[in-house]
Amino acid sequence: MPMRHPQLNEKGELRHLLTIEGLPRELIHRILDTAASFVGVSAREVKKVPLLRGKSVFNLFFENSTRTRTTFEIAAKRLSADVINLNINTSSTSKGESLLDTIDNLMAMHADMFVVRHAQSGAPYLIAQHIERMRGHAPHVNVINAGDGRHAHPTQGLLDMYTIRHFKGDFTQLTVAVVGDILHSRVARSDIHALTTLGVPEVRAIGPHTLLPGGLEELGLKVYTDMREGLRGVDAVIMLRLQNERMRGALLPSAQEYFKHYGLTEEKLALAAPDCIVMHPGPMNRGVEIESAVADGPQSVILDQVTFGIAVRMAVMSLLGQSQA
Amino acid sequence: MPMRHPQLNEKGELRHLLTIEGLPRELIHRILDTAASFVGVSAREVKKVPLLRGKSVFNLFFENSTRTRTTFEIAAKRLSADVINLNINTSSTSKGESLLDTIDNLMAMHADMFVVRHAQSGAPYLIAQHIERMRGHAPHVNVINAGDGRHAHPTQGLLDMYTIRHFKGDFTQLTVAVVGDILHSRVARSDIHALTTLGVPEVRAIGPHTLLPGGLEELGLKVYTDMREGLRGVDAVIMLRLQNERMRGALLPSAQEYFKHYGLTEEKLALAAPDCIVMHPGPMNRGVEIESAVADGPQSVILDQVTFGIAVRMAVMSLLGQSQA
Amino acid sequence: MPMRHPQLNEKGELRHLLTIEGLPRELIHRILDTAASFVGVSAREVKKVPLLRGKSVFNLFFENSTRTRTTFEIAAKRLSADVINLNINTSSTSKGESLLDTIDNLMAMHADMFVVRHAQSGAPYLIAQHIERMRGHAPHVNVINAGDGRHAHPTQGLLDMYTIRHFKGDFTQLTVAVVGDILHSRVARSDIHALTTLGVPEVRAIGPHTLLPGGLEELGLKVYTDMREGLRGVDAVIMLRLQNERMRGALLPSAQEYFKHYGLTEEKLALAAPDCIVMHPGPMNRGVEIESAVADGPQSVILDQVTFGIAVRMAVMSLLGQSQA
Repeated sequence: MPMRHPQLNEKGELRHLLTIEGLPRELIHRILDTAASFVGVSAREVKKVPLLRGKSVFNLFFENSTRTRTTFEIAAKRLSADVINLNINTSSTSKGESLLDTIDNLMAMHADMFVVRHAQSGAPYLIAQHIERMRGHAPHVNVINAGDGRHAHPTQGLLDMYTIRHFKGDFTQLTVAVVGDILHSRVARSDIHALTTLGVPEVRAIGPHTLLPGGLEELGLKVYTDMREGLRGVDAVIMLRLQNERMRGALLPSAQEYFKHYGLTEEKLALAAPDCIVMHPGPMNRGVEIESAVADGPQSVILDQVTFGIAVRMAVMSLLGQSQA
Repeated sequence: MPMRHPQLNEKGELRHLLTIEGLPRELIHRILDTAASFVGVSAREVKKVPLLRGKSVFNLFFENSTRTRTTFEIAAKRLSADVINLNINTSSTSKGESLLDTIDNLMAMHADMFVVRHAQSGAPYLIAQHIERMRGHAPHVNVINAGDGRHAHPTQGLLDMYTIRHFKGDFTQLTVAVVGDILHSRVARSDIHALTTLGVPEVRAIGPHTLLPGGLEELGLKVYTDMREGLRGVDAVIMLRLQNERMRGALLPSAQEYFKHYGLTEEKLALAAPDCIVMHPGPMNRGVEIESAVADGPQSVILDQVTFGIAVRMAVMSLLGQSQA
Repeated sequence: MPMRHPQLNEKGELRHLLTIEGLPRELIHRILDTAASFVGVSAREVKKVPLLRGKSVFNLFFENSTRTRTTFEIAAKRLSADVINLNINTSSTSKGESLLDTIDNLMAMHADMFVVRHAQSGAPYLIAQHIERMRGHAPHVNVINAGDGRHAHPTQGLLDMYTIRHFKGDFTQLTVAVVGDILHSRVARSDIHALTTLGVPEVRAIGPHTLLPGGLEELGLKVYTDMREGLRGVDAVIMLRLQNERMRGALLPSAQEYFKHYGLTEEKLALAAPDCIVMHPGPMNRGVEIESAVADGPQSVILDQVTFGIAVRMAVMSLLGQSQA
């Protein structure tokens, strides 16, 4: 990567949101503070502020995800932006146009923001670097990574941090566990970078050997293959979605077996701190990685995550909109 | 169904529109009166009123219908709402998320209104009941049934009533015939409930034995298998769309045969009252259930139905938007 | 065609934009002048003007084209219109509804403008003629042809003319070459009509025999099968996209062979005038009809075409919006 922080400008402001890795702690807090001011907007009668009025936000979804696309669409519309949805598997890339030709075209249409979802890790970086290379030749466009391969899902990481800060107040006294398929999870990666940046003293990774990547200890994490041991005393547990395709491969024996060892049940949750919160990025596989009694129980903050997710995305978009000016 | 009128609140105001069955006559008239005030809006230079400004309306189409989705999208946009279209066959339900988890998520995003189309009868009820159960825990969302299985299509029923009232003035002197595949038609069901509630003294059901459900007489209808006999003297005839798949099954011999017996021709229409109006919910199968000379003839009000349909949907949405406050 | 100029009203104003053939030269210049006033709008902080506020613009795409649909969607939204996208292969036409029934329905919903893309030549004409026949019976709707079969793509032709005028100032001293698959290209057809109408004294058609239609000389063009010869001294070269399916048929030997003879390289471009501009409607097949060094080189105005394309579409829409009043 030629540029060290392609997502920050010289003044340290956010020009793109590509990953949480390397984001300064103060900037993360600034995003969360800005999100706090937007939580109220979505609860109002008129859920709209004019911050992005007349801006063109493009949802570039090279990988289909109605759910994630919807959250960005709502966030942009509540900021009064014009939103254009492009599902690009059916688009001109199928006519053989390259990714960057597509980007050049949309820039020439005076796009203001690209929300990019792509199955390949690094695609949003590639786009942001291309935009930076064009500087001076084309109007600037802000890129938001809405999930790239196994790499990063920074707005999910930020909304998870918002949720933890909302319920726990302070990061510096916490023990947080991330449970499940850490190997393939861009959510896990973004959460781990956020938690360590924000000063969480103990971050635990829990999962079967086959779903734990190497190098977690080097990041300062404690690694557990025994979920009961790993949950002991934690203040927050972040469950990960188990992709069905993992079960068809050689990595896992069966959903039942997985649930027995790594499914979050009331019995296992009882080992955590009494006020431990339960998080999940959704969509949940009930009965696979989490039981319904927990998902719908008093310690679950899963729907709060969704609510805060809109505010966090509004915050990121509005901060990017300002940095551009 | 545990709640008797899940669509009305304690004050008798509309909280959801799920079915016409059980709607008080005055409420139907109130919806039609409100629609009358919107007919002018769509004919204006600027076809917009700010009644739903800043509200988030979700078109949740579990069954594809570009046509119906379009009418709701236009109605919502003319009320200045933000509209988000979700075709949910390709969405997270395909990732194994349950219907109600999807609903919970959208509620957590502070949705204001769900327009629900579903192949399964009762799905909009299920959603409305779930929302009522969450009362106090989550912001309220209004549900509009945009067609569920064979059960109901209440906005179609209401726009049909608007059309009849517009052309005939008064319901209490009329004879109205519903013709065709009544067995499988949610439109027929909604129209029949509306007509009887509004005091139409004679409602006739016309169709072949195989496409007439039992119990029509109990609803007060007169049943005819001979279309010529059934049309005699009627003031309005509501033709139903014949689904192609019926012809492939054992229920019907052929499209030609069907047309001969139950297709509306000029010759058969001459048996009705001279000022009888001809209605059809669309899309029409010309030459199957109706001949073009009638569909495009002077007694046809089929395109008026479409125009009034926008106004009726605006009326329902604006009344729901108010009841919520 | 019963009406000579179905796209102009009695005062010679644009009611529909169906083809460039037969458009008066002054009207083309008026569209380009109007576009010039919109170029600035897309570069502003707030890229919106209220000219089509409260109007309903329908993108009726019977043939899929995310790229073209996006340009019209952006143009309409920057004019503050409400935009409804309909991909009609998956819609009610699949339920057997005829094209004109679909149009009647959308007119009954008080549509203001149809942007029509269709695989069949003439479909937008059919729609415009139908609308004119309904005059007095239904509110008027303006039709814009967004590409019909091999026939016409008038907004592409207009944006190409805008680009030439922007870079060259005057049409009456120019030599312009159109290169490639002219036989199958609606873009070529629209460009050729525009260039001759605007008084370009020398228009050249360059391509292999198999991809050159008959009758070009009758239109006043010079025809070349040798690209080097044809490019000599030209002021602007319009490259055409080569559809991949041509290579699979008998019309062309291979992409490599095509590139060798008709691909635009720096070496071939050197034969043109030193300030010759290079144009392409996109999406490009790099290495087939154009090499990257030229596409991204100093003489390329391909991305300017995209930028001007938004302004030209805004101009057409706003002129149509006025003529209606």
